[in-house]
Amino acid sequence: MPEPRRLRIIGVGPGDPEQVTVEAVAAIRSVDYFLVVDKTGVTGAGPDPLFAARERLLARYLEGSPTIVRVVDAPRERRAAFTGTDEQYRDAVADWHRARVAKYVDALTSRAGDVGFLVWGDPAFYDSTIRIVDQIAELLPVEVDVIPGISSLQVLAARHRLVLHEVGRPLHVTTGRALGEAVAVGHDNLVVMLNRDVAPPELDDWQIWWGGNLGTANERLVAGRVGEVRTEIDAARTRLRETAGWMMDVYLLRRERPGRGA
Amino acid sequence: MPEPRRLRIIGVGPGDPEQVTVEAVAAIRSVDYFLVVDKTGVTGAGPDPLFAARERLLARYLEGSPTIVRVVDAPRERRAAFTGTDEQYRDAVADWHRARVAKYVDALTSRAGDVGFLVWGDPAFYDSTIRIVDQIAELLPVEVDVIPGISSLQVLAARHRLVLHEVGRPLHVTTGRALGEAVAVGHDNLVVMLNRDVAPPELDDWQIWWGGNLGTANERLVAGRVGEVRTEIDAARTRLRETAGWMMDVYLLRRERPGRGA
Repeated sequence: MPEPRRLRIIGVGPGDPEQVTVEAVAAIRSVDYFLVVDKTGVTGAGPDPLFAARERLLARYLEGSPTIVRVVDAPRERRAAFTGTDEQYRDAVADWHRARVAKYVDALTSRAGDVGFLVWGDPAFYDSTIRIVDQIAELLPVEVDVIPGISSLQVLAARHRLVLHEVGRPLHVTTGRALGEAVAVGHDNLVVMLNRDVAPPELDDWQIWWGGNLGTANERLVAGRVGEVRTEIDAARTRLRETAGWMMDVYLLRRERPGRGA
Repeated sequence: MPEPRRLRIIGVGPGDPEQVTVEAVAAIRSVDYFLVVDKTGVTGAGPDPLFAARERLLARYLEGSPTIVRVVDAPRERRAAFTGTDEQYRDAVADWHRARVAKYVDALTSRAGDVGFLVWGDPAFYDSTIRIVDQIAELLPVEVDVIPGISSLQVLAARHRLVLHEVGRPLHVTTGRALGEAVAVGHDNLVVMLNRDVAPPELDDWQIWWGGNLGTANERLVAGRVGEVRTEIDAARTRLRETAGWMMDVYLLRRERPGRGA
């Protein structure tokens, strides 16, 4: 029975190599190789720009070339993410997790040593790596640890110089998919991640603080009344897809009302 | 008219100097001095342990002694935080902000140079520094920027190896004060910060993942059914207050139900 090796899940922030913690840098330097998903060809849009971004991140902190084991991403049923029921969505995610687990296990059994998984943002928010590695840990003798990273929602707040909630009030973070549901139950201060579209027309009177590709050279920020800035945000999203080859955005939505604590 | 100087609001994580970002380290090195609140004597319990912790953090990243301008904290009406109405709570916070603004302005006008404010965790969550500095910026010619930091809730998630929400579902973060309200409207997956007590007896059947003084040498973790681990958590809280001289905790509460995504 071999010694269990370490699988390290390393949060590396949303894009800026300087927004990595000193602890994460040490973790990056501690592992023997990195398992990195490559979506090249999966989405049909040429090379995976996030694969290259991970290579640049490693180059910033490692002497010499890192050992990167490339894992070609499993195809994913995307439609369920936006139009299916909650159950269909969870099933689609579960299928996609299982496929990725199988690929990771293949890679791990063919190469010894401690392994790093580089997670954009923070592994604790809207990321599958912890759940996938938990499944690997049921199949292989491994020790797992998690290094927190800066999330895009924190960079959004920093850039707009915002506290994300009102004084003493809750912070509600949800997905574009579940936004309507959150508004329907009365939430009126919301951070929204994983968006297909920006806030719907019903929210035109709300305030929005939006950020796209935060922490990267292409970073874009827009703030204002939803109805007044929607066109500008849509244009920024389109332009990011064209110039960066990918687009990830996050926004704070807040309904202004009298007497509301700033 | 003098050049505006920079006020830099620097998130430094919840306690571990290694959980500071590379960007925050550069910001720490860029300023001329630090305005640091000292609560020694304010709470009547001897020297402020968090003041000393900030000194250690700076010693980790600066050659030689940092210039620290000590600001004795304004007294704060604490009762309203736990027992008052929302309005009383906001008023008490506003009074306390005004008092701190006045002290910071005094300090800033008596000493030139760029200034760093070290914020535990992330300035975007349950911290007053951004709001206070916004008020300063209305009074003095300054340029403000914010550097995000790791929040205790992210370290909680990392240590317990958790994603803080279910697949595709919201993350709801609230305070101990507003926990009852969140449960009443149906939230059953909650991160709770700023606690006076741990989850109430009505939630004995829920699961809890608790962390105290996360990122410090005294860090404590407890997980289990609320009813089964409450005594252990209460004891850990008491012990942290005794050994560290301060106690800050955060927890995830989740109601288990059949078919719930892990």
